[in-house]
Amino acid sequence: MMIQGHFFEEGKKLKYGMVGGGPGSFIGPVHRAAIAMNGQAQIVAGSFSPIFEETLMTAKELGISEDRAYKSFEEMAEKEAQRDDGIDFVSITVPNYLHYKVAKAFLEKGINVVCEKPLCFTIEEAEELMDLAAKNDVEFMVTYTYTGYPMVREARELVRKNILGDIRLIIAEYPQGWLAEPIEKEGQTQASWRTDPKYAGISNCVGDIGTHIENLAHFITNLEITSLSARLETFVEGRRLDDNAFILLKYENNASGSYWPSQVAIGNENGLKIRIYGTKGSLEWEQEHPNFLKLSLIGEPLKILSRGNDYLSESAQMYTRLPSGHPEGYFEAFANLYRSFCNKLSAKKTGEKSDELFPTVIDGARGVKFVHDCVKSSNKGGEWIDASFKIGGED
Amino acid sequence: MMIQGHFFEEGKKLKYGMVGGGPGSFIGPVHRAAIAMNGQAQIVAGSFSPIFEETLMTAKELGISEDRAYKSFEEMAEKEAQRDDGIDFVSITVPNYLHYKVAKAFLEKGINVVCEKPLCFTIEEAEELMDLAAKNDVEFMVTYTYTGYPMVREARELVRKNILGDIRLIIAEYPQGWLAEPIEKEGQTQASWRTDPKYAGISNCVGDIGTHIENLAHFITNLEITSLSARLETFVEGRRLDDNAFILLKYENNASGSYWPSQVAIGNENGLKIRIYGTKGSLEWEQEHPNFLKLSLIGEPLKILSRGNDYLSESAQMYTRLPSGHPEGYFEAFANLYRSFCNKLSAKKTGEKSDELFPTVIDGARGVKFVHDCVKSSNKGGEWIDASFKIGGED
Amino acid sequence: MMIQGHFFEEGKKLKYGMVGGGPGSFIGPVHRAAIAMNGQAQIVAGSFSPIFEETLMTAKELGISEDRAYKSFEEMAEKEAQRDDGIDFVSITVPNYLHYKVAKAFLEKGINVVCEKPLCFTIEEAEELMDLAAKNDVEFMVTYTYTGYPMVREARELVRKNILGDIRLIIAEYPQGWLAEPIEKEGQTQASWRTDPKYAGISNCVGDIGTHIENLAHFITNLEITSLSARLETFVEGRRLDDNAFILLKYENNASGSYWPSQVAIGNENGLKIRIYGTKGSLEWEQEHPNFLKLSLIGEPLKILSRGNDYLSESAQMYTRLPSGHPEGYFEAFANLYRSFCNKLSAKKTGEKSDELFPTVIDGARGVKFVHDCVKSSNKGGEWIDASFKIGGED
Amino acid sequence: MMIQGHFFEEGKKLKYGMVGGGPGSFIGPVHRAAIAMNGQAQIVAGSFSPIFEETLMTAKELGISEDRAYKSFEEMAEKEAQRDDGIDFVSITVPNYLHYKVAKAFLEKGINVVCEKPLCFTIEEAEELMDLAAKNDVEFMVTYTYTGYPMVREARELVRKNILGDIRLIIAEYPQGWLAEPIEKEGQTQASWRTDPKYAGISNCVGDIGTHIENLAHFITNLEITSLSARLETFVEGRRLDDNAFILLKYENNASGSYWPSQVAIGNENGLKIRIYGTKGSLEWEQEHPNFLKLSLIGEPLKILSRGNDYLSESAQMYTRLPSGHPEGYFEAFANLYRSFCNKLSAKKTGEKSDELFPTVIDGARGVKFVHDCVKSSNKGGEWIDASFKIGGED
Repeated sequence: MMIQGHFFEEGKKLKYGMVGGGPGSFIGPVHRAAIAMNGQAQIVAGSFSPIFEETLMTAKELGISEDRAYKSFEEMAEKEAQRDDGIDFVSITVPNYLHYKVAKAFLEKGINVVCEKPLCFTIEEAEELMDLAAKNDVEFMVTYTYTGYPMVREARELVRKNILGDIRLIIAEYPQGWLAEPIEKEGQTQASWRTDPKYAGISNCVGDIGTHIENLAHFITNLEITSLSARLETFVEGRRLDDNAFILLKYENNASGSYWPSQVAIGNENGLKIRIYGTKGSLEWEQEHPNFLKLSLIGEPLKILSRGNDYLSESAQMYTRLPSGHPEGYFEAFANLYRSFCNKLSAKKTGEKSDELFPTVIDGARGVKFVHDCVKSSNKGGEWIDASFKIGGED
Repeated sequence: MMIQGHFFEEGKKLKYGMVGGGPGSFIGPVHRAAIAMNGQAQIVAGSFSPIFEETLMTAKELGISEDRAYKSFEEMAEKEAQRDDGIDFVSITVPNYLHYKVAKAFLEKGINVVCEKPLCFTIEEAEELMDLAAKNDVEFMVTYTYTGYPMVREARELVRKNILGDIRLIIAEYPQGWLAEPIEKEGQTQASWRTDPKYAGISNCVGDIGTHIENLAHFITNLEITSLSARLETFVEGRRLDDNAFILLKYENNASGSYWPSQVAIGNENGLKIRIYGTKGSLEWEQEHPNFLKLSLIGEPLKILSRGNDYLSESAQMYTRLPSGHPEGYFEAFANLYRSFCNKLSAKKTGEKSDELFPTVIDGARGVKFVHDCVKSSNKGGEWIDASFKIGGED
Repeated sequence: MMIQGHFFEEGKKLKYGMVGGGPGSFIGPVHRAAIAMNGQAQIVAGSFSPIFEETLMTAKELGISEDRAYKSFEEMAEKEAQRDDGIDFVSITVPNYLHYKVAKAFLEKGINVVCEKPLCFTIEEAEELMDLAAKNDVEFMVTYTYTGYPMVREARELVRKNILGDIRLIIAEYPQGWLAEPIEKEGQTQASWRTDPKYAGISNCVGDIGTHIENLAHFITNLEITSLSARLETFVEGRRLDDNAFILLKYENNASGSYWPSQVAIGNENGLKIRIYGTKGSLEWEQEHPNFLKLSLIGEPLKILSRGNDYLSESAQMYTRLPSGHPEGYFEAFANLYRSFCNKLSAKKTGEKSDELFPTVIDGARGVKFVHDCVKSSNKGGEWIDASFKIGGED
Repeated sequence: MMIQGHFFEEGKKLKYGMVGGGPGSFIGPVHRAAIAMNGQAQIVAGSFSPIFEETLMTAKELGISEDRAYKSFEEMAEKEAQRDDGIDFVSITVPNYLHYKVAKAFLEKGINVVCEKPLCFTIEEAEELMDLAAKNDVEFMVTYTYTGYPMVREARELVRKNILGDIRLIIAEYPQGWLAEPIEKEGQTQASWRTDPKYAGISNCVGDIGTHIENLAHFITNLEITSLSARLETFVEGRRLDDNAFILLKYENNASGSYWPSQVAIGNENGLKIRIYGTKGSLEWEQEHPNFLKLSLIGEPLKILSRGNDYLSESAQMYTRLPSGHPEGYFEAFANLYRSFCNKLSAKKTGEKSDELFPTVIDGARGVKFVHDCVKSSNKGGEWIDASFKIGGED
């Protein structure tokens, strides 16, 4: 038994449905497990697979009644929107190239949406989804998981409170090693679709993990990129999309940044790491050791902040489930996003104000824009290009 | 989205009930969240609080029908045993001093039991529960959480495969700092009951965390203790039970051990760490960095094994939910225990053989014996005493 | 007393002199201490300061006879060249802007030279020094200290033996935080000259620490840079030279590189770190933990190689002074360079062949070229430019 | 070149001689290199080997005049004492079993002594040496190297300033793995004499490394041991002395301690680590990462103090040679001891007061007593025995 901890409530459950996540899916069950950890929402509907029998099978396993196992996402959106006890939100865990179509279908019916990243493939689609969400007053979360870690929330608070002073440098990297060999040729599923433009879009490495860097940096610092220079590279022979990239950036406050995503960096597993340097101090966070945050203030010894301690801000504390020293990980981060999202929906239902933090359709759109800018710059030999992002296509 | 991963199934759900875990409980929701992560069992009954209104409240929140919200655990054991659709198991999350009574009630009805550690307070009680479980052919899991970590499973495999050679030394520690000051006097709940013999039994520090060391060492090495010398100490003035201990041990194979549990070691959060030295190599595992396992073989560089990689044994792989680099933590370890337990129950139902690993009532009894031996030795000034453990009181 | 170790010999001492290193000097005594550690050379002459009384004072302290305390380096070069028992080499520890002049004086007299980095300020000077050294058959070492660490030697061996396969990526950084504030305005000596073009040349950050990255990467991989894109930045207002830089590179084998030197990265002390990724594996070395080298091979657990162990190559072993576990540091690295250099001189004296490794005037020239190329690219807004280096100005 | 640093002076050199340290010796050259780093003393005499020709050879290599190369240490003590320019101190680097005889010879002549640990083999010898040193007003340093690390000095200051509050626990360990196999049977020199009672005395593991723990704990906390219980064990078959030990202790202030030295702990190189817990905070230091010191204060994040920073005490700063981030190691620690000792001698010469810190003959005697107490307790099956240490045999 444990020594102390923050209570997290179970309670009136929201109802949700899922598109994707049928037999063989990996990310579908992750979403369901994350939601289950919170005890805030219950799955009641789904269109889990293009093969209806599979949908029925999954529905049965999950205890969903047969009439809410749908043949298509379109049918699901339509019928759930008509029900009095229709779903409060849908979780979209289909392959990337379908995100846009599925999200759009539910948005149009006024159903709240949770969607895997990337939001979609083109800037136009992203703008359309943003517009639809705004017009229909729909909540839309894009699951940039890493923003759910409590120590990332703490990092954000430290920057907000100006503990670091003015930000000068954002140095971030996301090395992985799993694509160092052409495993897509041996039929490894994850590798195959990620390196195929049809399913992955215009970029593999920047699209898959570079955007996580972009989102995390923005989440913590709230700085918008103004220009960037990118080099997308392909090291594995015959591969059709990038597997490594170097991206240099300037931000609105004139800070500089360097992002390095790679999938050919053998020895790295999921090495997302961000360092932020200001005029008064710096911080460092690593995804593989997410319960800790390093803080250096000028002239002082390095401090190692640890999740679950009283010296942390409310922002970190409220997303802590276990006492300090009891490691939380990726699932909890994922669940935290859903917690924020469900809190928001619950507040909205009762008309309460809520300033819950989660990555929205706007963040998703910013990510799409970022990928496009990187590809554009790279195609011009790494030329510096304007990379500002404006909500609502004002640009 | 993630790069690869091991699929974990949702499926035919077992039914369970809970005793304890009402409003304000910390560990009850942890159990429920852990079970929910697996999607293998569904809560259908409970006696969550001595106050029936609270039980009703929790039942409602959890979607349990009113007729299965029970006034007492005795009633619950009786009625559930009579139902055709009665619970497959009960999870006991009441305060420690009630474990024995509650467990006994369900054992006598032939209902499978999951119980928090410590199993009970006296050796006689422990033997009685062991006997009852054996007689009634009931599965009984004691939630020594740390045995659920995949890299602990890997450690066990490495020892079993004789990678380390003959074990010579087990060096383990479990420093915490949270009781360095007399916070029980300020009404901190967790501190208050843990330092009160009525609720904690004959030991605080050894009983609460020393037993985790004992269990972990036994789980990994399968070695039985033969004798020990213990010094239980109380550093905080006025405290009624131990808050630090030094325990030296000999094992059946003539290996030596040293266990150091402490709650006054400021700067430590939940610092369980075990190092095992053999004639050919050694390994080291730390609870606060549970995804890694250090392995040293004589004459070779240190290796850092990382969860989720193909070079690990099946034992570790089958308890892995996320790809390497995506941190798993305490919840997953907890959920893994339930997964083993539920797998076992499911197999039993269908008559399949199953060699699922989880800490049983025997491990619970071994722990109770260990605490008593430590207190006994300490009361004799640290004298070395026989500390062998025999199942079924053959001693 | 220690458990084992590699014997290092004292023996027939070479004779050396020093230019610079008088009262108040920091690096002069470091050179002398490093040389003293080896017991291979003895100081017998010097022109330690432009103020002759200070030279006399230092000479007396060091036990140098008065007639070999010189008023000027020119006089020293001339007189020592005439003596039968003249110095075997000179160590130049004067401010950077004097390196060229002093080195040239001794080269012209055929005296072997050790010179601090940077070798000089212009490419023309560098070529002249290279030519002179070649023409007069003089040994010339530039003290790029980090190449003296045994685990850097091991890294070089691993690359040479093709353990990593073909090199794809060189990711290196050298963050420091000491210039995050305008301390040069408060008269901090080290900061003042480093940020003054007169004393530091055309670059501060790239010249001072960026070149260490360049040299280390070349030393380990033996790859020549073919082109680069650099952004030199100045974050501290009023500072006249760069204090941060981002450099992207391509190498002759088509590998890519990223170097990040910074002096405004608060929280970093001397954070030189290099990671090299190949088609079969990777390695990582950090200057602040120099006794260890991380090695990852595809599909295997991370290995931590530790200095002083038998599994290391001869190249690392021969530069090890202490048994494993007894930390060696910066001084030993420095001393190792002098050891290589003195070994070379001794071998030359006796006509033996010697393949001792140390950074030469060619490496110094390569560094000068690198700094110029970075400044050139940066001045063009980070344009990619040809950055190949050819010995003897064949370009 | 480096960014900043503390100047260390070269200057009027003391004269020293050495007994031991001839051809093939490991520790002799280490002493000489350490002394050379400081530039404070010059070797002028020696009796390096029982074989006079070897002594002459070493003398020649070191530039010692033939008349000060002595056939025996007795002759050396006598003749050097008679010279006007006789040695200021002698460094004794002979095998352990000769320490007593050699030290005594020089003490009797009033010559200052530096001696390797252990000081001697029996308590009577230790007392005799203490008495002689006191009577003849001779400075006597025992080279417990680890007390020379700046961060150990810092630790001592933190305790002295009561930053940790009252000390409750001292947890220290010194695992090594090099004797995990019977390498003494294969003629490994270091292993052979260490496991032979004739050359090592009554204990191997406690005598060789356990005493380092004892000395370090005392140095940092200034606490005297009052009682202890020890278990000395031999894991390698046929070995004649201990290769592992568990020692529990009580100190004068009622704090408790646990020391674990081991030479069969595969995977450890020289793993000396000490943790000290008080009522307000704790600190942790590891010999293999000596430039850092962990400090935890109740309710605050862990701080990592790093050598060379302004926030450190004068005690640490004055023993720092290199700027922060430039690793110092074992040699520097060794040299620091000599620096303190030479400072003391120089001050004494000029009649200045000096409170230089170094381990003295008293610390050496305390160590001898400690080893004897451990063996005594172990021989009684680990019984707790009085282990108080009184200077001058007052006990």
